[in-house]
Amino acid sequence: MKRTAFFISDGTGITAETLGQSLLAQFENIQFSKLLRPYVDTVEKARDMVQQINAAAEKDAARPIIFDTVVNDEIRRELAKSQGYMIDIFSTFLAPLEQELGDGSSYSVGKTHSIQHNTHYKDRIDAVHYAMDNDDGARTHHYAQADIILVGVSRCGKTPSCLYMALQYGIRAANYPLTEDDMERLQLPKALKEHKHKLFGLTIDPDRLQGIRNERRPNSRYSSFAQCEFEVREVENLFRKENIPYINSTHFSVEEISAKILMQMGIERRLK
Amino acid sequence: MKRTAFFISDGTGITAETLGQSLLAQFENIQFSKLLRPYVDTVEKARDMVQQINAAAEKDAARPIIFDTVVNDEIRRELAKSQGYMIDIFSTFLAPLEQELGDGSSYSVGKTHSIQHNTHYKDRIDAVHYAMDNDDGARTHHYAQADIILVGVSRCGKTPSCLYMALQYGIRAANYPLTEDDMERLQLPKALKEHKHKLFGLTIDPDRLQGIRNERRPNSRYSSFAQCEFEVREVENLFRKENIPYINSTHFSVEEISAKILMQMGIERRLK
Repeated sequence: MKRTAFFISDGTGITAETLGQSLLAQFENIQFSKLLRPYVDTVEKARDMVQQINAAAEKDAARPIIFDTVVNDEIRRELAKSQGYMIDIFSTFLAPLEQELGDGSSYSVGKTHSIQHNTHYKDRIDAVHYAMDNDDGARTHHYAQADIILVGVSRCGKTPSCLYMALQYGIRAANYPLTEDDMERLQLPKALKEHKHKLFGLTIDPDRLQGIRNERRPNSRYSSFAQCEFEVREVENLFRKENIPYINSTHFSVEEISAKILMQMGIERRLK
Repeated sequence: MKRTAFFISDGTGITAETLGQSLLAQFENIQFSKLLRPYVDTVEKARDMVQQINAAAEKDAARPIIFDTVVNDEIRRELAKSQGYMIDIFSTFLAPLEQELGDGSSYSVGKTHSIQHNTHYKDRIDAVHYAMDNDDGARTHHYAQADIILVGVSRCGKTPSCLYMALQYGIRAANYPLTEDDMERLQLPKALKEHKHKLFGLTIDPDRLQGIRNERRPNSRYSSFAQCEFEVREVENLFRKENIPYINSTHFSVEEISAKILMQMGIERRLK
């Protein structure tokens, strides 16, 4: 079975998309064609959307599902003229929330919303530059400023996790690749020892690691299964010996890895 | 007025947090203390949450607002024993969606959900490494693989925007800093000319740019208002002369900048 879903917003569409994706993920037997439509902020654009929705309805021979977070009442009324099945996210929750909070929301006066930042803009940008500058063990003399230092073998997922934590939460995350040398000595490099309480380990299944490394340097020792298996086993031994908390990244997304790390480290994300 | 809000999930909490933040943003007169509580995936953890919620209720002398995306019925029933005001996100929408789609969701059989990725994991990770390797004009010989190349003066917000597009949407985004030389000649560097259709410009208000640069190199020519003002004016002239689409990043978040760029470039984000 095939259905089309639209995520429509007068802003970025992130809220409509995030909620819509989570809800549709519960329907595993249906194949959805998903379309993100941000900045639908005029009645004209809404009319164009109605045409797109109706065209999809005809093509699928079924009503498209519409997730919308449009604030403006006129625009929403226009969208409602389509043949879509509307999930009107803001309307659903704002009326009961207004009652509970005893305060008129901006919504009821038609104010456009903008995305809320999890933390202050400047903190996020600074954290992104910190992660870039302290990626892959490039520098170790700024670890005093780190909130967290990810350690693990080459290509186990450290860099994307650091950048995600920086961008989403303004967390200063450095990362350091543990090499064969470190493992054979079962020793932490000196630069890491002084900041041991900030260390968090990532590990990965050897066959997954081999696949990733093989794309980078095909048919090399670096990407051989024996090497990957050796490094992963030894790095896990090192984590255990040094009591460094760690997780296996193989089956998790960057979002999940980051959430688990922050929870285990007891780092409260700075929500604005 | 002060209220506490909890974002509670058996997963990362991203859906609960995103929707909760958007909804609470509509209530500008209330100061919320916001707490993210991911991986509440056992009845024991739910009991602990109930204690935290009730403690907040007592402290605020008002019911905390609970946004939850917990799938397990037993855990939700436990949470419902608290003194919080529950916004049960999944329950609200899944029953009507099941009816519309004529298919039982995994929700109704209590299957744990995990975050949906906007695109395939590998694409995102590859794109992150592409953005890192092609940051700040470091290399120009891989522009053929770029989906987009951001251009603008130093510190106008290119790097975080590229990384965001990579992480969220698996888009390969390079960036190139336009220097005084380029501006004085009002010429695009050769490396960029061949990929002109991939260029997108970022600009920024001179006083904001000065603030950012001043933190990096205080009291330098680089961070003087005159220099910032000159570079911004000239780069905008260059954008106009070369017909490069551009936006002013000053008042937008990374999410907003990215959404606007992709919309204007007509790049459809690859939603899985």
